[in-house]
Amino acid sequence: MRAKIEVFLKPGVLDPQGETIKRALHTLGYEAIRDVRQGKVFYIEIEGEDAERTIEEVAKRVLSNPVIEDYRWEIEK
Amino acid sequence: MRAKIEVFLKPGVLDPQGETIKRALHTLGYEAIRDVRQGKVFYIEIEGEDAERTIEEVAKRVLSNPVIEDYRWEIEK
Repeated sequence: MRAKIEVFLKPGVLDPQGETIKRALHTLGYEAIRDVRQGKVFYIEIEGEDAERTIEEVAKRVLSNPVIEDYRWEIEK
Repeated sequence: MRAKIEVFLKPGVLDPQGETIKRALHTLGYEAIRDVRQGKVFYIEIEGEDAERTIEEVAKRVLSNPVIEDYRWEIEK
């Protein structure tokens, strides 16, 4: 089974990396871009019947920092 | 308008970061996890009528490295 976990900064948390990308895009002429925020995505192959519980646990306890990040996940197939 | 661009390594390209995460998860007892690959995700706010063309162009020419990475994007709203 394949799962995808997205980890992204909570609203209000500064994202200097996203800001830098936005400025670079403006310099390149992409002025229509108003905001960029960067996150991480993990593609996970997992076996077993408890896969959904494991993915939730791994997303919450290992792959995200609950102080500044949120996460969401889905099973892809 | 909000778009999401995912950038991920092409199949066959080594992902040492994903390997490290997989080993760490095994050490923590998550043995059911067979494989981990990490990618990037960009959340973009964009204005204007040409948004879809701009997003495709930015994904292809700026945010991904076509030698080792693929990308996909969607408009979220």
